[in-house]
Amino acid sequence: MKVLAIVSGGLDSITLAYLLARDNQLGGIISFDYGQRHKKEIAFAALAAQRLGTSHAIIDLTSITAHLKGSALTDSIAVPDGHYAEESMKQTIVPNRNAMMLAIAYGIAPAQNLDAVAIGIHTGDHFIYPDCRPDFAASFEAMEQKALEGVASIKLLTPFITGTKADIARQAHTLNVPIADTWSCYKGGAVHCGRCGTCVERREAFALSHTQDPTLYEDQNFWLEECRKKGATL
Amino acid sequence: MKVLAIVSGGLDSITLAYLLARDNQLGGIISFDYGQRHKKEIAFAALAAQRLGTSHAIIDLTSITAHLKGSALTDSIAVPDGHYAEESMKQTIVPNRNAMMLAIAYGIAPAQNLDAVAIGIHTGDHFIYPDCRPDFAASFEAMEQKALEGVASIKLLTPFITGTKADIARQAHTLNVPIADTWSCYKGGAVHCGRCGTCVERREAFALSHTQDPTLYEDQNFWLEECRKKGATL
Repeated sequence: MKVLAIVSGGLDSITLAYLLARDNQLGGIISFDYGQRHKKEIAFAALAAQRLGTSHAIIDLTSITAHLKGSALTDSIAVPDGHYAEESMKQTIVPNRNAMMLAIAYGIAPAQNLDAVAIGIHTGDHFIYPDCRPDFAASFEAMEQKALEGVASIKLLTPFITGTKADIARQAHTLNVPIADTWSCYKGGAVHCGRCGTCVERREAFALSHTQDPTLYEDQNFWLEECRKKGATL
Repeated sequence: MKVLAIVSGGLDSITLAYLLARDNQLGGIISFDYGQRHKKEIAFAALAAQRLGTSHAIIDLTSITAHLKGSALTDSIAVPDGHYAEESMKQTIVPNRNAMMLAIAYGIAPAQNLDAVAIGIHTGDHFIYPDCRPDFAASFEAMEQKALEGVASIKLLTPFITGTKADIARQAHTLNVPIADTWSCYKGGAVHCGRCGTCVERREAFALSHTQDPTLYEDQNFWLEECRKKGATL
């Protein structure tokens, strides 16, 4: 089986690519420029493709950006600080983003004779993002069976969907993923900010998995202070 | 209810826009440039938007074109002549095209506070294109309920899905659609070729609906000759 992996350039999706490569299933990498302010992540996807010796398609969706109002990822709205599991993080929803990316990947996979599309969604995404949940994934795969009936049969692989980001961090170490060459921060600055939802989640994942985090955060202590405020024991 | 209509610039989708406008439901028009050789159709969508006084989003998907090999619509493969209901017409399939277009429309609709997305698929499309069939449409709408859960609730309108193209031709006349300002031909030449699947289907639809066809076809007699070959009584 050969698989087209949707890779943003973040920890989850690059670990996904390394997992597929280990199993000799990586058939290509696809990334999307949808006008996200942290589009520097795509360079990390490109680096992963190069290291894994696979093709890298970068799909330009910036002509939709002006029509996708209302997300802190693509608009002038400030990226909120704090934990993913907070209401304020809903500002980072780009409605239907995963359905759009998956539909395009499913358009490309048959042309490249690939058997599956893979995406690195996990349980930590579920609270905020409806298009990261298991029932969305099942429903999307069922829809594609209809859309491609008689043309192709493409599976949807979501190997992390029942796991946590800490599980992914652990797996990244096992797979020797070059973790410092993955990009999570929504702000897209020179280094990871350490304060936005995805930085907090990244920091927490390495802590909870008791593995080393080589990431340089501008605010190294934000997550620790947030934990202390909540009375958590580390 | 306000609706985002997917309009290629063809007879079906422009009639769809006029139908929604008559019912005061047209909330915007969206068209896609996916590298189709007949991209002149988009100018007819733009003209319809202008006449109907609604917004027109043109989404540039040309960065996917190089990855979508194998269709006569986007590749150097010749567009086949003949009737839609022939095996050769499968060369005109762009795998997953409708799922891609619908997913993007469903990404944009919530940002514009629209209630539904509409697409002009009809029974004549069903034989060749799996992503024009009723079970695809139902499955897509169900998938989007999951993808946008808690974010938005967007209906999928397919008013022509159980009708024929002849029904659409009849409705186009009833709605005073400027039929000469719609574009079907897959070859995208100066005038409609009269020989490709969509020209034959267009010509046939007006004949079967006993309505006037103002279209100028380069080969005006191809469809008639094809009918005679098959022994059809006109």
